[in-house]
This record gives sequence, C-alpha cells and structure tokens, in this order.
Amino acid sequence: MSAPFTLLGQNGAAKGRRGCLHTAHGVIETPNFMPVGTYGTLRGVPSHLLPDLGAQVMLVNFLHLFFYPGPEALARAGGVHRFFSIPVPVLADSGGYQVFSLGSHRKVGEEGVPFQDPRSGRKELFTPEKVTQFEESMGMDIGMVLDVCLPHDAGRKAHEKAVAVTHRWAERALAAASRERMLVFGIGQGGTFPDLRRRSAEGLASLPFDGYGIGGLGIGEEPERTFEALEASLEGLPEDKPRYFMGMGYPQDIARAVAMGVDLFDCVLPTRNARNGQLFTSRGVINFKRSVFKEVHAPPDPACACPVCRHYSLAYLHAMFRQREMSAAVLATVHNVAYYLDFLAKIRENTASI
Amino acid sequence: MSAPFTLLGQNGAAKGRRGCLHTAHGVIETPNFMPVGTYGTLRGVPSHLLPDLGAQVMLVNFLHLFFYPGPEALARAGGVHRFFSIPVPVLADSGGYQVFSLGSHRKVGEEGVPFQDPRSGRKELFTPEKVTQFEESMGMDIGMVLDVCLPHDAGRKAHEKAVAVTHRWAERALAAASRERMLVFGIGQGGTFPDLRRRSAEGLASLPFDGYGIGGLGIGEEPERTFEALEASLEGLPEDKPRYFMGMGYPQDIARAVAMGVDLFDCVLPTRNARNGQLFTSRGVINFKRSVFKEVHAPPDPACACPVCRHYSLAYLHAMFRQREMSAAVLATVHNVAYYLDFLAKIRENTASI
Repeated sequence: MSAPFTLLGQNGAAKGRRGCLHTAHGVIETPNFMPVGTYGTLRGVPSHLLPDLGAQVMLVNFLHLFFYPGPEALARAGGVHRFFSIPVPVLADSGGYQVFSLGSHRKVGEEGVPFQDPRSGRKELFTPEKVTQFEESMGMDIGMVLDVCLPHDAGRKAHEKAVAVTHRWAERALAAASRERMLVFGIGQGGTFPDLRRRSAEGLASLPFDGYGIGGLGIGEEPERTFEALEASLEGLPEDKPRYFMGMGYPQDIARAVAMGVDLFDCVLPTRNARNGQLFTSRGVINFKRSVFKEVHAPPDPACACPVCRHYSLAYLHAMFRQREMSAAVLATVHNVAYYLDFLAKIRENTASI
Repeated sequence: MSAPFTLLGQNGAAKGRRGCLHTAHGVIETPNFMPVGTYGTLRGVPSHLLPDLGAQVMLVNFLHLFFYPGPEALARAGGVHRFFSIPVPVLADSGGYQVFSLGSHRKVGEEGVPFQDPRSGRKELFTPEKVTQFEESMGMDIGMVLDVCLPHDAGRKAHEKAVAVTHRWAERALAAASRERMLVFGIGQGGTFPDLRRRSAEGLASLPFDGYGIGGLGIGEEPERTFEALEASLEGLPEDKPRYFMGMGYPQDIARAVAMGVDLFDCVLPTRNARNGQLFTSRGVINFKRSVFKEVHAPPDPACACPVCRHYSLAYLHAMFRQREMSAAVLATVHNVAYYLDFLAKIRENTASI
C-alpha cells in the first residue's frame, strides 16, 4: 500500500503545509478540521448534511461507542459508517482524554486503565491492544492509540512516566493492529515540558505510525506554554506524516498552529458553544441569546453562505432561544460547523501547492 | 377580488372534494394538512425545509405570538413570514382552543376573554376585534376568528350559549377586519349536539367569511360523536367555501373526514408524538424507543421517500434516543410531517378533478 499521506506543498518560509490523507472512506484535504460527534453523531446535525457543510471527516469517541451500541453490534451492522449513516471518513479518539477528563487517570496501570461508563455504570479494563483492535472491528478510518493524558500541572515526574507508558502502549497497539484498512495514529504527550514533548515525539516517530496526534494540551495551561509544547512536539515528528493537534481550538489558535505545520484539528467549541447561543462569525463571536438581537432581521454573518445565514436572522435565533426551541441549538451548530470548515478551506486556499 | 377558493372537483357519489385556496403567500391545494408551529416554527424542523417536506401551509398560534415577539415587533419586521423565515402561507389559530385547554374558558364574557400568558405571566383581555386586527397586522394569510371553545361535557345550555356568543363575536371580528390581504375564517361550535352544530354553521354561513373552521371536537368525546357533530356542521356550511376540521387527527380520521367534504386539517400528532419516539408509517405506528429496534438497519418506512427514510435506520434513531440526542426528535418530526403531507398528497391524487 502506498503512503496514505501526500504532502502537496509548503508555504514558503512558514511551516504551513497542504496535503491529502487517503482513508478507506475517502480523501481528507489538509489542513482540516474534524467536527466532534462523540456518540456517533454531531448533536443536532443530521449526518447526511455533513458533506454539504464542507466536512471531509468526523470524530467519534471510541469509549462511548464501546459502551453503546458496542463493538459487536457495530461489527454486525457492517461498521460505524453504516450504523450511524456517516457519509465521511471517521477518526476514533482512543479515550485517553475521556479517562483524564472523567478523573480515571489516577487508576492507570502498566496493563491499561479501568474505566466506568458514566451512563450505564459498566466497568471495563481498556488496554492499548483492545482499543486498537476494537477500533478496527468497528470500521474506523483512523484509530488513535490509547495514551496516558495527565493534568497539565501533574508535575515533571508524573509526565515523564506518562510519556514512557504512552510509548510502551503505542508499541503494543501497533503490534496488535492488523493494518489492513484502518490508519493508526500515535499520540505524543509530555505536559508543558518541551524536552519531554520532544522525547515523546521522537520515540513515536521511530514507530511506523500513519500519523501523529499531539495530546494533553489546551487543558488549563497558559496559552504560551501550549504553543511552546506544540512546537517541541512538532520538532520531533517526521515531515511526511500528518500531524493532528488534538482538541484545539479557537479559529485563531488553529491558524497559528497551521502556520507551525499542523494538519488536523478537532474541537467541541463550534458544537458545544452553539448550544449556549454562541456563534463564530467573520466579525467575531456573538451570542444570539442577548436581547439586543430581538429585532435584528439580518443573518448572523452576512459573509457566510451556510444554510442558516442564507435563511435566518439573529431575531429568529433569539426567538427560538426564548421559546426553548431546539431549532436554536440545531441551527447554531450547523452555522458554527460550516463556519469552521469554511475557515479551514480558506486556510487551505492560502497554503501554496507545489 | 375573485373568490379565493376554487372547487376543482368532487369524488362521484362521495363528498370528498379537491380545491385550491389562494392566499397572499401562495396557493394551497386541498385537501391539505397544516403542520403546527405554535410559536412560529415547527419544533426541531428548520422552516426553510418545509417546502421540501411537501408543506404548502403552516399553522401558528396567535396568542403565543402576541406575547412574543408581539404584534408591534412582527409588524416592524414586515410580518410573521419575515420574522420567522416561513416560506409558505401561514394560518393563525385565534386562541379559542388555548383559552379552553389552559382553563380560561370559565372567564369568557360578552366583551372577550382575559388570558394569562403561561410563560411571561402577562395578562391581556382578548376581544374578537383585537384578535382579527392583530392577525392582520402580523401578516397572517388566514386568520381564524376568536371563538368560545368549551369542554365537550359542559352541557347543552352552556354549549347553546357558546354558539350564540361565538356568532356575535364572528360578526364583530368581520366588522373589524380590513379584508385587504388576510382571509378570515369563522369557527363553528356546538359541542356534540347535532342541532347546535347545524345552527352554529348556518349562522356563520350567512356571514361573508372566506372559509369555515369546525372547532371544539376531538377533545375527549366519543369518536362517533365527533363524526356525527362534524357531519351536522358540514351540512350547515356552503359548498363553495373551504372547510377546516380543527385539531384532527390520525391519518384514518383525516381520510374519513375528507370523504365527508373537509378541505383542511391541522394536528400536533405528527410533531408532538415524534418527540416521544412515535413514527407514522405505511405499516402503522411504530416507536423507535423500543429496544427491539437496536439493530434494525432498515429505514422506518421503506415506502417513504423522506430524507430520514432515505438516510437513516431504526437502529440509528434508537441509538439517538438512547444517547439523549436531539437528532432523534428532529428526524422523527421530519419523517412524520413528510408522512402526513405525502398521505394528503395521495388523497388529493385520488380525489377526482373536473
């Protein structure tokens, strides 16, 4: 099989790059953004609309799909795309971040990590082998390996250990993978310590991954530390493989990271904030819950061509919010996702091809 | 102005009829069904999709829109279509039924009825003049007049009085209407007493309305009483005006009423029941919350061409419900509305033209 990632060009002196990632369910142009459909769908956005919104890939969460509908049901359906009617490639987050955010990182052992489903209460020991093999059987296009994600202020010793365990888990995940259809991405850690970041990245770079995630950032540390750590991670990674900055961020963060050489992004901001009334627009963030919009019969963003900005006004969204109408969340999510994807498309246009 | 309603044909010996109702925002082919967007929008269904779902008209509730955004804000926006981005004609329910269902019918006086907004707590005295004039200033295509709707078991005396007050209110509403753009429909009452029903209908028929609603039915009485009362109402109404059976019903009720000569329907069933997981299909009603559908990778209704049946399975809808995902309600509503409208389109096809 030829290399799944093709680097198409680089932006002069800047490190921004343009590329193509080939997956079993289609090509992803990079740089690109993956909207988050934790449980198999973007909250409020029917999946068949994803291509119309410009989505070329979507993120789901392995842990949550493991507990429902479960790997067996997904395999019987013919995979996650068939079960959830997803018309684009799918990347599965391994759950390292969920383990951290739900407080289970304290229970990480050499073998794996026990995790309790917050919905059903069911417990399961997750190992790197199990995660990667189940990601494959669920029909994912890209599977992230299980990693150890710590709080940013866990201290150097703990981060050093997390980097070592993450590396051993990465080797075990790769050894367990069939490598038949699913691309496997490693995940670099190291907190905000540049030398640990570089060590983690270089270690993973020595393993034959299809791409690399940079994890454990944007979780409370100072923004300048985030970008320092990102830079150190990128220095340790090979040029010919895609780099995925996990969980980031605001459009300006994404633009900055692209210029540093990042290819893929995901973030809950456009979807989660939409449900709180926040819209990303070419004139900045606005919140349609504010009563100042009660009679503003203009689209959220006149420069935006999404179905929401073509058909609805801020007054309409404000009325829907006032009336506790789910259309408010649905339409705001559609706009924000379209806005992010359009922003990334513009970044691609402005990143030179060879 | 020529008559807004054209009768195109009748179905042989049966009384089923086909027609066209011309309104300021477009033509409504009859028989037809009006999906309910109480507060200016169908819960969960972006209004710009209405024509794609086959909708030719939508119902909103005057009382709720009176309290928010209010008649002044609607007039300043250029009308309800502009404020709520509604691409089809709009019929405004006068609020007589809301007054009943929220228990305020006991306060009805000759002048009007005081009503308290359940959301804001604001009180207002509604009169037939005020309702019709505000419906006009809000830009409605069809305005129902204010009527007195009583519980079905209120007794003959109370119903007799309600018929008399409703008639006087109908005269006052007509006198207050400008008749410039908005069609005005009267509403017949009379409980389940056939003679009162006929008296109410004949009284309204003597007034120059553009159409006639049959109200106060389907609110707890025996189904056979419903149709008996409907028949008596229809006997009193002119053939050349549209007849609207308010608030009904299941598809089989609609088919029966069409055969009796009804032209228009509205009902919350397809929208409200969708939010409880109930789908109307060509094979009967099914509920996707049932765990038996967990792995049914087939559309809700293979005979349906709606976007939901084209793209999603029962297993997907079941998963969305399990995951408390609003897509479950959104997609079920889209399907049910499309199903009802397709059902009415088929009835029209089977009702002969001249």
